[in-house]
Amino acid sequence: MNCSKKFGIISKTTMTKKILITGTSVRSELLNPLVEAGYTVENPTHLLTEGELKDILKNASAYLLGGDELATRNVISAAKELKIIAFLGMGYQSFIDAAAAKEFGIAVTNTPGTLSNSVAEFTVGLLLSSTRRLFLYASEYAAGRTGGEEKQRDLPSLHVGIIGLGGIGTRIAEILRNGFGSKVSYYSRTRKPHEEQRLDVSYLPFEQLNKQVDVLVVMTPLSEETKGLIGQTQISSFKKGMILINTARAEIVDPAALLAGLETGQIGYAAFDGLYEKPNESMEKLKALIPAKLMVTGHIASLTHEARDGMAKKAVRSILNILKTGRDEYIVNGL
Amino acid sequence: MNCSKKFGIISKTTMTKKILITGTSVRSELLNPLVEAGYTVENPTHLLTEGELKDILKNASAYLLGGDELATRNVISAAKELKIIAFLGMGYQSFIDAAAAKEFGIAVTNTPGTLSNSVAEFTVGLLLSSTRRLFLYASEYAAGRTGGEEKQRDLPSLHVGIIGLGGIGTRIAEILRNGFGSKVSYYSRTRKPHEEQRLDVSYLPFEQLNKQVDVLVVMTPLSEETKGLIGQTQISSFKKGMILINTARAEIVDPAALLAGLETGQIGYAAFDGLYEKPNESMEKLKALIPAKLMVTGHIASLTHEARDGMAKKAVRSILNILKTGRDEYIVNGL
Repeated sequence: MNCSKKFGIISKTTMTKKILITGTSVRSELLNPLVEAGYTVENPTHLLTEGELKDILKNASAYLLGGDELATRNVISAAKELKIIAFLGMGYQSFIDAAAAKEFGIAVTNTPGTLSNSVAEFTVGLLLSSTRRLFLYASEYAAGRTGGEEKQRDLPSLHVGIIGLGGIGTRIAEILRNGFGSKVSYYSRTRKPHEEQRLDVSYLPFEQLNKQVDVLVVMTPLSEETKGLIGQTQISSFKKGMILINTARAEIVDPAALLAGLETGQIGYAAFDGLYEKPNESMEKLKALIPAKLMVTGHIASLTHEARDGMAKKAVRSILNILKTGRDEYIVNGL
Repeated sequence: MNCSKKFGIISKTTMTKKILITGTSVRSELLNPLVEAGYTVENPTHLLTEGELKDILKNASAYLLGGDELATRNVISAAKELKIIAFLGMGYQSFIDAAAAKEFGIAVTNTPGTLSNSVAEFTVGLLLSSTRRLFLYASEYAAGRTGGEEKQRDLPSLHVGIIGLGGIGTRIAEILRNGFGSKVSYYSRTRKPHEEQRLDVSYLPFEQLNKQVDVLVVMTPLSEETKGLIGQTQISSFKKGMILINTARAEIVDPAALLAGLETGQIGYAAFDGLYEKPNESMEKLKALIPAKLMVTGHIASLTHEARDGMAKKAVRSILNILKTGRDEYIVNGL
C-alpha cells in the first residue's frame, strides 16, 4: 500500500490542513478525493498509542478510524480543529466516545450498508457448507477417508429462519428466495411488511421461528439484550438435527447450550464466523466437534474488496461532506 | 431400510410376477406402487454377481438398476420375461448393454432432470467455498491457525462462465443470476436463445469463455470428446488467479495441466467433486495442495433425499408405464 505521507514527516510550520487515517485496509487511491480537496493525508501503518493519536489529532481536521485505536474523551478533548471522526464499519461504540465527541462539536459517522452483500454471501456459503456438509466431507477427503454416504437435503424443501431482517438479513432472504427457492421466515423486533410482500417471506414470533425451521440464521447485533438469546430453552425447542448458522457475534448463542445441542444431535450442524472471544468452559469441547458437527471461520465474512472499498468510499464522502457543509447523512452521535 | 422381500426367499412355484431392485438407495415405500400393481419386489442389499443377476432376472418382469451391477449381453439374453431395465440416474451406458437390450425387445430408461437442483446447489456451495475460501479458512481455524487476512471478491462483481447449459448448468445460472447477481456467460455445443433471454446470460465461444471469466464451472458429461477438454492451452489462457469448479467428472480437466495451473497461481483455487478415478502422476501433488489451493469432495453432489427420491419415483413410473402400455417417455435405447 502506498501512503501519501508517512507518519511524523509533516512539518509543523505547514498550513495545509491534515486528515488522519489509521489502519491498513484503505487503498491509497480511495483517499485521492481528500488530497484533491487540498488536505494532507497521513496514514501511519502501526497501531497508534493514545499519546500518539492525541498528538496527531491536535491539529487534524478529520479522522478516518480504520484501525483499532480508541478515540477516548482524553484524545477528543485535545483535538481542537477536529470536525469529524469517520468510523470504518458499523460498531463505532467500542472505539469512539461518541458522547464526548458531541460535547466538543465533533461529528461521528459510520458506514452502514456497505457490508451487506459480502456478509450475506458468506452466510449462504456457510449455510450450504452445513446443509451439504461440504467442509466435513472435504476434510474427510483431505484426511484420506471416504465420507458422504449420508443423504442431505435440498434447499427448496428446507424452511430457513432468519433472526434479524436488517440489511444483511434482507440480502440473505433475497438470495434464498430468488436464487434457491427455500421457504423463508424471519423474526425481528419490528415487522417489515414491505419485505414480506416483496420477497414472500413470513414473520414468525421468536419461539415459533425456533421451533419450526430446518435452518436458523442468526443475524442480529450483539447487545446486552441479545447476549445468550439462543440458550438452552431455545435449543431444546429446535427440530432435531436442525442447522444453526451464526455470522453475527458468537455470544448471541450460549456456549454451553450450543455444546449440549451439538452433542445430543438437537443441532445437526453449526457454522460460526468467529467463535467466543472470552474463554469459557465449553470452548475446547466445541473445537473438538470440528469438522464433524461444527465449522468455524475467523470472523472474515465482510473481508472482500467490494465491502472494504465501499466502506472507505463512504467514510471519505462523509469527511468531505462535513468539512464542506457541516452536514452528512451518516452522523450517529446526534450532531 | 425395509425390503418387501429379501433376496432368495421367493418360492419358485409362485406365479406372482417379480421385479428386481438393486442397490440400497431406494426407500421401500417408494416401491409401493409396484406392489400395489400386483408385483413381488426383491431388493437384495449386496452387490450381485453376474451369475446371481442372471439367475434372478430369468423370471423377472422388470429391473430397477440402482446398484453397481452390470447388465451384460449374457445377463440380458437369458432374461426371457424382462420388459424393462430402469436405470437409476443418467449414465446407463457404463452399466447396461443397451444395444443387446434393444435386440431382445427390452426397454432401457434413465431418470433425467431429477438431480439438477441438488447438483446445482452443491456446485454453488463449492463456488462460494472457493471464492470466499471457506474450506481453507475453516481448515486453518481447525488447525489452530488464524487465516483469512486476504481480501476476497463479491459475486456481483465476478464473471462466471459455465461449460454446458443442460439441466444442471441452467439451474446454476438461475441461482447465480437471480440470487447472487453475478454476470454469467456459457459455452455449449448448441446455443440456448430462450435461456439467454430468460436469465440474461450470454453465449461465448469456448476460447473466449476461458479467457474472460473469473470463475469457470465445468458442467458437461465426460466423453471421448470432452476428456481433457480443459488442458494446458486453456489453463494458460485463464485470467491469473481465476477459480475452477468441477462438479462433472474430473477427467474433463487434464490432471498435469491442473497441477501446473494451481502451482503457478494461474488457477487461484479449484474445487472438484470427485478426483481422478485412474491413478496418474499428478495425484499426490494435487492432494498436497488441499486445503491451500484445492478442495475435493467424494462425488456426492447428487446425494440428497430429494434427488434420490425423485430418481426412484421416475424409475418406478417408467416400469409401470412399460409393463402396462409398453411405452415410456424416458426410453433411451430406441425401442
